[in-house]
Amino acid sequence: MDTGFDRRLRLPQGVYDMLVRETSLRREIERQLLSTFISWGYGEVTTPTFSYLESFPEELGALEREKMLKFLDRKGDILALRPELTPTIARLVANRFKDADKPLRLCYSANAFRYEVPNTGRRSEFWQAGVELIGNTGCQGDAEVIAVAIEGLEQLGLKNFQIDLGQVNFVHGLLEEAEFDTEIKEQVQSAINRGDYVGLRRFTTGFSLSPAKETALNKLSSLRGGEEIIEKAVKLTKNPLALGALDNLSQIYSILKDFGMENRIRIDLSLVRELGYYTGVVFEGYAAGIGYPICGGGRYDKLLSYYGYDCGATGFALSIDLLMDLKLAEGLGNMKEADYVIEYGEKDRSWAYLKAKKLRESGYIVLLQPKN
Amino acid sequence: MDTGFDRRLRLPQGVYDMLVRETSLRREIERQLLSTFISWGYGEVTTPTFSYLESFPEELGALEREKMLKFLDRKGDILALRPELTPTIARLVANRFKDADKPLRLCYSANAFRYEVPNTGRRSEFWQAGVELIGNTGCQGDAEVIAVAIEGLEQLGLKNFQIDLGQVNFVHGLLEEAEFDTEIKEQVQSAINRGDYVGLRRFTTGFSLSPAKETALNKLSSLRGGEEIIEKAVKLTKNPLALGALDNLSQIYSILKDFGMENRIRIDLSLVRELGYYTGVVFEGYAAGIGYPICGGGRYDKLLSYYGYDCGATGFALSIDLLMDLKLAEGLGNMKEADYVIEYGEKDRSWAYLKAKKLRESGYIVLLQPKN
Repeated sequence: MDTGFDRRLRLPQGVYDMLVRETSLRREIERQLLSTFISWGYGEVTTPTFSYLESFPEELGALEREKMLKFLDRKGDILALRPELTPTIARLVANRFKDADKPLRLCYSANAFRYEVPNTGRRSEFWQAGVELIGNTGCQGDAEVIAVAIEGLEQLGLKNFQIDLGQVNFVHGLLEEAEFDTEIKEQVQSAINRGDYVGLRRFTTGFSLSPAKETALNKLSSLRGGEEIIEKAVKLTKNPLALGALDNLSQIYSILKDFGMENRIRIDLSLVRELGYYTGVVFEGYAAGIGYPICGGGRYDKLLSYYGYDCGATGFALSIDLLMDLKLAEGLGNMKEADYVIEYGEKDRSWAYLKAKKLRESGYIVLLQPKN
Repeated sequence: MDTGFDRRLRLPQGVYDMLVRETSLRREIERQLLSTFISWGYGEVTTPTFSYLESFPEELGALEREKMLKFLDRKGDILALRPELTPTIARLVANRFKDADKPLRLCYSANAFRYEVPNTGRRSEFWQAGVELIGNTGCQGDAEVIAVAIEGLEQLGLKNFQIDLGQVNFVHGLLEEAEFDTEIKEQVQSAINRGDYVGLRRFTTGFSLSPAKETALNKLSSLRGGEEIIEKAVKLTKNPLALGALDNLSQIYSILKDFGMENRIRIDLSLVRELGYYTGVVFEGYAAGIGYPICGGGRYDKLLSYYGYDCGATGFALSIDLLMDLKLAEGLGNMKEADYVIEYGEKDRSWAYLKAKKLRESGYIVLLQPKN
């Protein structure tokens, strides 16, 4: 079956056509999200679909180089399709906005690309919208971007969703406190990254940790719930990094409470997303009926210095594909067909055109159809 | 200068960042064009950014394989970034819409990719919007897509533009009539493709053509103007293919006249765009102050059969980049800054958020700014 002719028609692994209904839904979601972002003062930018491989920082961990789609330019330099938008915007800021007033509010809505293992149903080309708040804006900045994410989802009409909130330095602090060897520490980090709490317990019970430290790490997976979780966690550690993280989380939570958004927030201290990339608060959004996070983000204060500009930043990305899946599952009703079909013969072409034009100017969809 | 660090920040040849002003202009042009297309009954579709190299027909001439950006998938198959949208939509139609009612009206607004020689200023990633009318719609279909192009440009506020109209079979007919050897014929075709009339004259005078045939080919470059050009050309040839082309052109012109669009049209019988790809009417749009065509299209009745589906089609693409250049040259006025900046302290966060929310709901851009 895998003939050349087959490759004329068949699509590669992981990419799809969106027909009229899906595309109109994508446009509507993009329009709605961008309108929310813009109303908060974020300006949309467009970065190139590909750039040099070196413009995507491997060392920050979140961007697995082997998942990038790469090709060579005519000089033999490696180019990569962007695996996400955030690094492209960080590069843009380091290039063009070093001297601009901060904070800088930027947003985007675009496609990105990753290699995915066949038959997982995961997309190799996917669509994201997000914001980046550049500058040392502290917990107010973090609370702002989380509020923008919540408002964006609400204005799309989503009812059943929740934002999980964590802080990577809480976990970093516990690991510091446990005084693991470097090698063990990496394995423990990796277990936490994967959410592998059975694996984690193997380490925390197999080594000579004091009972208090063991308890804190082992309780990670149960440190989920409302505001009270922060109080509970404070009692589990004396590590300054971990305590600072809890204080930061408590301030962010308190701002979101003032914004009336506490019913959307669940504290989850085991949430780390990618340790190494994020440097403070992290969050993920979940909607009823979808197993993957519909949005994710956090503070990433190290990324800009990869591009030679030392500056804090915080942001998030929403998955337009998953939001489309949610809307399609709700059912969309029928697509708008043409409102009018105007048939015309050779004699009444002028009349037909003018009539159609007038109707179109009033917002109708009009087909012109020659009589046979 | 070409260090690894440099490649973190520098962009590859031919691609650019669009800042907030440019992106908002791009969105506005896309929104406006799509709204025109949709009002004529065209539905927008989204095709993948890349697909198998074989899905882009080299033999049709318009898509130079060496200009495509190519990479390997994990199985060693060659993938290519789409060099334009039309073949991706032809493939989609052959895959999904063979049995749908015709004509089928589809449109798009997306980016495409071509390798460009360094320092020409040409873009390797560019943005296009266009329509495809699928089905054997004859001259009415051709006139419709030309009318959509004209209306799209008018609704963007463009004043100074013109559509050049040709028919590839007029040239094919003259070449047939001249009875060149195959090899010479290819060189003559290539000279016409390039608009090289000096080169063309070398062939038409160097061979034993009858004076009448010589005259027709040599007059090609002067066969430009209003409706009268068609009359003039009829007298220059007896070839049935060429005469059929002139008749087709005359019918399309007459429909566009009924639509009140004759002041936008100039007949140009030397216009061929890419011989081999186009099979009937061809057209290009020019705006004052820009040397490249801002749009181009025509009838391409052979393309769908490349995907195993024998069906006629006609369409065009507009260059969003050139339309942006035109608008930017007009001057855009200042970007809208924030309408309101609401400063808040810890005590009045709830008040500030609610006030901002209300203003945003009325369409204002509102910045929330913590007091220090």
